[in-house]
Amino acid sequence: MRVDVISNVDDIRSEDFIQKSAAVIDVLRATSTMITALAQGACGLLPVETVPQAQSKRSEHTFVGGERYYKKIPGFQAGNSPHDYMTDEIAGKLVVLTTSNGTRGLLKSQRAAKLLAASFMNGTAVASALASFERDVILLCAGCRNEFSLEDGLCAGMIIDAMESMLDQPLRLNDLGFAMKLAYRQCRGNLYKTVMEGASAKQLVKLGYAHDVEYCTGIDTVPVVPIAKQDFILVPLY
Amino acid sequence: MRVDVISNVDDIRSEDFIQKSAAVIDVLRATSTMITALAQGACGLLPVETVPQAQSKRSEHTFVGGERYYKKIPGFQAGNSPHDYMTDEIAGKLVVLTTSNGTRGLLKSQRAAKLLAASFMNGTAVASALASFERDVILLCAGCRNEFSLEDGLCAGMIIDAMESMLDQPLRLNDLGFAMKLAYRQCRGNLYKTVMEGASAKQLVKLGYAHDVEYCTGIDTVPVVPIAKQDFILVPLY
Repeated sequence: MRVDVISNVDDIRSEDFIQKSAAVIDVLRATSTMITALAQGACGLLPVETVPQAQSKRSEHTFVGGERYYKKIPGFQAGNSPHDYMTDEIAGKLVVLTTSNGTRGLLKSQRAAKLLAASFMNGTAVASALASFERDVILLCAGCRNEFSLEDGLCAGMIIDAMESMLDQPLRLNDLGFAMKLAYRQCRGNLYKTVMEGASAKQLVKLGYAHDVEYCTGIDTVPVVPIAKQDFILVPLY
Repeated sequence: MRVDVISNVDDIRSEDFIQKSAAVIDVLRATSTMITALAQGACGLLPVETVPQAQSKRSEHTFVGGERYYKKIPGFQAGNSPHDYMTDEIAGKLVVLTTSNGTRGLLKSQRAAKLLAASFMNGTAVASALASFERDVILLCAGCRNEFSLEDGLCAGMIIDAMESMLDQPLRLNDLGFAMKLAYRQCRGNLYKTVMEGASAKQLVKLGYAHDVEYCTGIDTVPVVPIAKQDFILVPLY
């Protein structure tokens, strides 16, 4: 099985996903938020690209959230903090979410045969799902403004590390994948402190979201795996 | 001091180098070859972009080498294997070199205030030079066909690791720089075997150049630092 880690959304074409499994990784915070929302009882997640698209979905059956530049969009029910979704209000609702990078990553990956949302919080469960699909894998780091993000790369390394523990055959990795496996193994015991060295975490701390960074670096704390259905709504895999 | 690691030549603009120090890293094999040629007594190195440019420089004072797709260019005196430059023939001559990625990296970095060529073979010497320049640093991984190369990233990690040992102040790293520092620290005791997992090394082994990979992963074996002068000829720093 081949696993390619892609550094950011602009480094890959939509066609490259055809026939493959993919997991989009936006640790801080889109995919961590999606996992939280499904664990909290949302019936599904609809990622949309623009603010007007999200607004147009507003109804009694939806819960509309999103951010631009780390901040909640005015008039939305929630921002992009997982803590905004720890509310009974979302039980049974469709969460509509628009974020700067994570949503773009999911839209870019739409042609994958299987499409998951991954974070440290569900990393081993994602690895297990990817291993079971028996297809080549793309791990797409959402990154930030077309640049590589430390926490997304380390999460890719974690998923590779977990997949290698599960499978008998060795994985074929691209160069970035191999580097991320090494980097993750070097810092696995010290993940929160390491992620805090990255630009996204520093920005979140500055904006008062240090608790989000701590929550989003918990390993295997919420083993729910969001998977995209045909209509591009993400639901729990199991 | 800020140190940014750039994943490949296309991920940065020429203007970004202004006022900064830069080191171009093409471990397999352009920068390792340049270091070898200067250590062997070449008076300087002229990187050029095209095959005709290189051919036009041929004279009794030059030694013309280069590769495309890992292979020696027909009619050239040498390819891109460092072993091609371990000859007394180059003593006192200007080595004219054209390679797929390393040369492009140097040309892209021309506007840097100080421009070096780096590899594992001169990593600590490069770190020491960059520290002494007291400017922000760009470590440009040449990569391969617009993609990140494992060995170049690990070499960037090695230079950062060495700079941090030298300097009292902590470095400010971009996210990729931090990840590469971690990855290097994880594999430093096992560098040759690790680099062999990368696509470039595998390709070189297939073409019969395993000895080049071994030579190019020697740490601090040839502490000569090529630095670009005004006329874009690289000469030994000391």
